[in-house]
Amino acid sequence: MRDSFSRQGLMAALGIRLHSLAPGEVRLRFDSAENLTQHHGFVHAGVIGSVLDSACGWASQTLMPAGTEVLTVEYKLNLLRPAAGATFEGVGVVTRPGATITFASGQLVEVNDPDRPIATMTATLIGARPD
Amino acid sequence: MRDSFSRQGLMAALGIRLHSLAPGEVRLRFDSAENLTQHHGFVHAGVIGSVLDSACGWASQTLMPAGTEVLTVEYKLNLLRPAAGATFEGVGVVTRPGATITFASGQLVEVNDPDRPIATMTATLIGARPD
Amino acid sequence: MRDSFSRQGLMAALGIRLHSLAPGEVRLRFDSAENLTQHHGFVHAGVIGSVLDSACGWASQTLMPAGTEVLTVEYKLNLLRPAAGATFEGVGVVTRPGATITFASGQLVEVNDPDRPIATMTATLIGARPD
Amino acid sequence: MRDSFSRQGLMAALGIRLHSLAPGEVRLRFDSAENLTQHHGFVHAGVIGSVLDSACGWASQTLMPAGTEVLTVEYKLNLLRPAAGATFEGVGVVTRPGATITFASGQLVEVNDPDRPIATMTATLIGARPD
Repeated sequence: MRDSFSRQGLMAALGIRLHSLAPGEVRLRFDSAENLTQHHGFVHAGVIGSVLDSACGWASQTLMPAGTEVLTVEYKLNLLRPAAGATFEGVGVVTRPGATITFASGQLVEVNDPDRPIATMTATLIGARPD
Repeated sequence: MRDSFSRQGLMAALGIRLHSLAPGEVRLRFDSAENLTQHHGFVHAGVIGSVLDSACGWASQTLMPAGTEVLTVEYKLNLLRPAAGATFEGVGVVTRPGATITFASGQLVEVNDPDRPIATMTATLIGARPD
Repeated sequence: MRDSFSRQGLMAALGIRLHSLAPGEVRLRFDSAENLTQHHGFVHAGVIGSVLDSACGWASQTLMPAGTEVLTVEYKLNLLRPAAGATFEGVGVVTRPGATITFASGQLVEVNDPDRPIATMTATLIGARPD
Repeated sequence: MRDSFSRQGLMAALGIRLHSLAPGEVRLRFDSAENLTQHHGFVHAGVIGSVLDSACGWASQTLMPAGTEVLTVEYKLNLLRPAAGATFEGVGVVTRPGATITFASGQLVEVNDPDRPIATMTATLIGARPD
């Protein structure tokens, strides 16, 4: 899985790194940077979506048979407050594993302010066996 | 608004460009590139979310008084098929303008296959007067 | 399918009736009534969700093999304006049929004011073969 | 608030009762009944949406100034497993109160099986002062 993560062009481009990996739970981190912002200088909602979608996808992957491909069917992102700060952590947790459909949820915090979530996600994922 | 768009670090980093701008409707385009992919080589769902969230946000901005800041409250992204192709267009359309809350919807297509949407979004946005 | 619809206890309890049925598109109607309201006298968001979820589910059913059971995986409801009026129509349309996952969208209007949507839905459904 | 709850026609029609009320958290309960089912005999997704939307709305109301009207802007419902059982409890919790926008989340369980959520919701609400 770490190999697969490193093959993701977007994760490298955005400076998103794998912070921890456990069955059903994955944490990613990234630092604030000029290329991640919207016009007010906060981290762009698209970056937040990318991080949490990835965290949910990898968390789902940890509970699937080796060789299964995980695809996101849909996700919903709530933006609770502006993403201001230096380093952010996004966690993805499987809330309901399934043979076909997996549900996961995600949350983003600034690492020095972990009790005030910046954004939350729920995601629906599907596992597919490659032919 | 074009100035403001160009100040968005993420848009530049992902190679997303403003294609057209009309009251209540904005089109953005980008080309497939290695730094936009997930591990299967398709465009990452996070990029799709970034493009459509931006298109919805700018579409909302076109209908607001000058000086209003538009913030995304939440968005929901449906991923209908893999994002394979060369050049993609994301359109954002205001479906319900409002004094406080604006609803918008977005859709992504490959420009040579415009009748088969790759992804759809609905977004809720809020306009705020800076102090 | 009409038999199956009539077996739905909730549809009868809420006075929701099948208005039209075509491949990939189903229209349901209901009249305003005291037992459908929230405390301001408008139709309750839960009723709107019930109607549109049902319309999306039946629309999906029309495109599936006989005997397949359709289950809703998730839905997202946007409430654009208060549901005031006498008779409402909810339409469900399949936007992306699939072997496993089907996407549908729904919209509610008052029948005398069809150009101003009251609510919109996107739904994800799954078809399952009973054992 | 209890008066206001009892004026909700839909809550009475579906047999939904207020179970507990605390600042930022409201619990509603209902019993399985023939008029709440879909065609497989499980509780209809529309009922689940109604209960959780109401729980989220009332939870938001508890944190607002007296006289404020709470309206749901949008909600997203995830259906994790079939709603089988006798008595169900839906809880709504405010996750982010705000001057304009409030975020809440909801969860439905069968009361004898509280560790296996049947459905989860996130909702966005807005408080408005009546004129």
